[in-house]
Amino acid sequence: MSAYSEKRLNSLRSFLSDRREALLLTDEVNIGYFCGFFHSEGALLVTRSRAVLFVDFRYIEAAKQKADCEVVCFKRLYEEIGELCKNEDVELLHLEASHITVQRFGHLKKILDEFNVSLCTDGRSDSFISDIRVIKDPSELEKIQTAQTIAEKAYLELLNDIKAGVTERELAARLQFYMLRNGAEAVSFDLITISGKKTSLPHGVPSDNRVCEGDFFTCDFGAVYDGYHSDTTRTVAVGHASDEMMEIYDIVLRAQLSVLDKVKPGVLCSDIDKTARDIISEAGYGDYFGHATGHGVGLYIHEQPSVSSKSKTVLRTGMVITDEPGIYLPNRFGVRIEDMLRVTEQGYHNFVSLSKELIVI
Amino acid sequence: MSAYSEKRLNSLRSFLSDRREALLLTDEVNIGYFCGFFHSEGALLVTRSRAVLFVDFRYIEAAKQKADCEVVCFKRLYEEIGELCKNEDVELLHLEASHITVQRFGHLKKILDEFNVSLCTDGRSDSFISDIRVIKDPSELEKIQTAQTIAEKAYLELLNDIKAGVTERELAARLQFYMLRNGAEAVSFDLITISGKKTSLPHGVPSDNRVCEGDFFTCDFGAVYDGYHSDTTRTVAVGHASDEMMEIYDIVLRAQLSVLDKVKPGVLCSDIDKTARDIISEAGYGDYFGHATGHGVGLYIHEQPSVSSKSKTVLRTGMVITDEPGIYLPNRFGVRIEDMLRVTEQGYHNFVSLSKELIVI
Repeated sequence: MSAYSEKRLNSLRSFLSDRREALLLTDEVNIGYFCGFFHSEGALLVTRSRAVLFVDFRYIEAAKQKADCEVVCFKRLYEEIGELCKNEDVELLHLEASHITVQRFGHLKKILDEFNVSLCTDGRSDSFISDIRVIKDPSELEKIQTAQTIAEKAYLELLNDIKAGVTERELAARLQFYMLRNGAEAVSFDLITISGKKTSLPHGVPSDNRVCEGDFFTCDFGAVYDGYHSDTTRTVAVGHASDEMMEIYDIVLRAQLSVLDKVKPGVLCSDIDKTARDIISEAGYGDYFGHATGHGVGLYIHEQPSVSSKSKTVLRTGMVITDEPGIYLPNRFGVRIEDMLRVTEQGYHNFVSLSKELIVI
Repeated sequence: MSAYSEKRLNSLRSFLSDRREALLLTDEVNIGYFCGFFHSEGALLVTRSRAVLFVDFRYIEAAKQKADCEVVCFKRLYEEIGELCKNEDVELLHLEASHITVQRFGHLKKILDEFNVSLCTDGRSDSFISDIRVIKDPSELEKIQTAQTIAEKAYLELLNDIKAGVTERELAARLQFYMLRNGAEAVSFDLITISGKKTSLPHGVPSDNRVCEGDFFTCDFGAVYDGYHSDTTRTVAVGHASDEMMEIYDIVLRAQLSVLDKVKPGVLCSDIDKTARDIISEAGYGDYFGHATGHGVGLYIHEQPSVSSKSKTVLRTGMVITDEPGIYLPNRFGVRIEDMLRVTEQGYHNFVSLSKELIVI
């Protein structure tokens, strides 16, 4: 068993107050996180002394090689979970209420009733798991950095392709191609490669729209490596930029940099958000920054913590967050600049090494 | 309102036996299917006389333009659903039990109890919706055909790139690039571009493995167009093919063609599966065809009907299924050939126009 899996499973076990309790994980990402093997169907049962991964025949060979726990090839999943609970004297099974559907819960309950096992769906285990996952260990940080390195290399290749006349769609296709060729297993999300007026949409979709001289071009991109995501945004000018474009760019950049001065353990996420928001508001553009300043990144592209005005999370060493303020002027143009940071004891490490000076291509 | 949305909503309403009943859809794909607007969060409430889409502020402008129903910008979703039910004298709300999580159900129940609205999660509405969606209307068939045309064009471009020495990963990246450039909004699934021994894995993942002379190369690919998926597989030989490879290819092709002779309204899906399986079994390779013969395709890459040995579904005009038998010899090689068919009154229409003769590249 890898040291990381052992540590993760032990953390998870500390949720169980009694040996008659167990956890049943059904979220495939959480299952992969705790046992080291990612697949698309099954369940992970964790008792105080055992961890058993149930997979179907399609995954059994791979699971035996990769999973850091016992592996069982199931035929009748819920019955076999019931039997294992009975053999281990488990009387209470905690479920992931934010993942299991009402239908699956109904089937499971009917069968576990026969084994005298009660089910708990109070949401406490969901929060507990989220709290473990929010702190990234060294093996996770390494994968996020690899994802980022792949994505940056692809972005630098793309810069050669951005010119007046090329379509947004062509640029999205090329960027995705560069990432996959460089070793990404997938892209983190539908890539945003938009230009001109469309940059005023925070989540604009690339189309047959052609890049023009004098446009801003916004590129929000990320790669997935071994399950881990990266997330970065850069805005560049094509040909030239007006004074107003440069002014807006400068405000967003100042807001983005102000976050870097603030990030360290102990700081409230809502204060981080306020730092960036205040700069944009004081410049008169508060109404044009409609989203949160950042979010956590890891096995999902969006995870805890939220870096929003309402977030009560306090930053801790090992959290990974984005820093991505923006200003979006409807039907005119928008600017967003995004880095991805790891919170360190001293402050932060920036996964992103790309320049933030306004590039005119 | 488009004629298709109106027809779909009316079909859905026939589920409601009484004006005191309503349906609450939470599955984003089902919501999009019935109201014409796809987005990532919200709910669609359908009563006997009204259809109301609840979206948050991010989607409100787009929803008003595109949705074929009333649109409400919600602030407190569950309370607003409760109020609407009360105003419409709805007393029983049917939920999608196969979609809603136990956690969301708990929150919703707590609030709707205050409005004296009961919730039903018996799974009947899930089956009812699936039965509507399994028959594709002309607008859906057109989108599936467009997705297929995009994918085929990309595959034909890729054939020029397949040669000894190129990696599987490079070919996956290129194929994805060609699809996106040709107008796909995404690929239907993680593309399978595998060669040599790895073709014995039905769902092998492209790696830095290099294509070699004498290899089979299996390409399982599909594009997404306006939400609709395509799905096709072709196996080609690189340089040359051994007698055994040609023999296995021929058996799979005969099995695949036998399905085409069989597909028409009224035929049991399990009989379709048996047709292909019998040919492979009689040739002595029954143990090496471990998956079902086909599956439905549409807004999801895998949907109803299943074309498996256990499927009791009877084919009807307007269903879309794949026909994809295969033989997989462990650690040696595998062959799969897949078309995508629409069931017609006379038999079938094949969305795929690519040749199935064994190509040696």
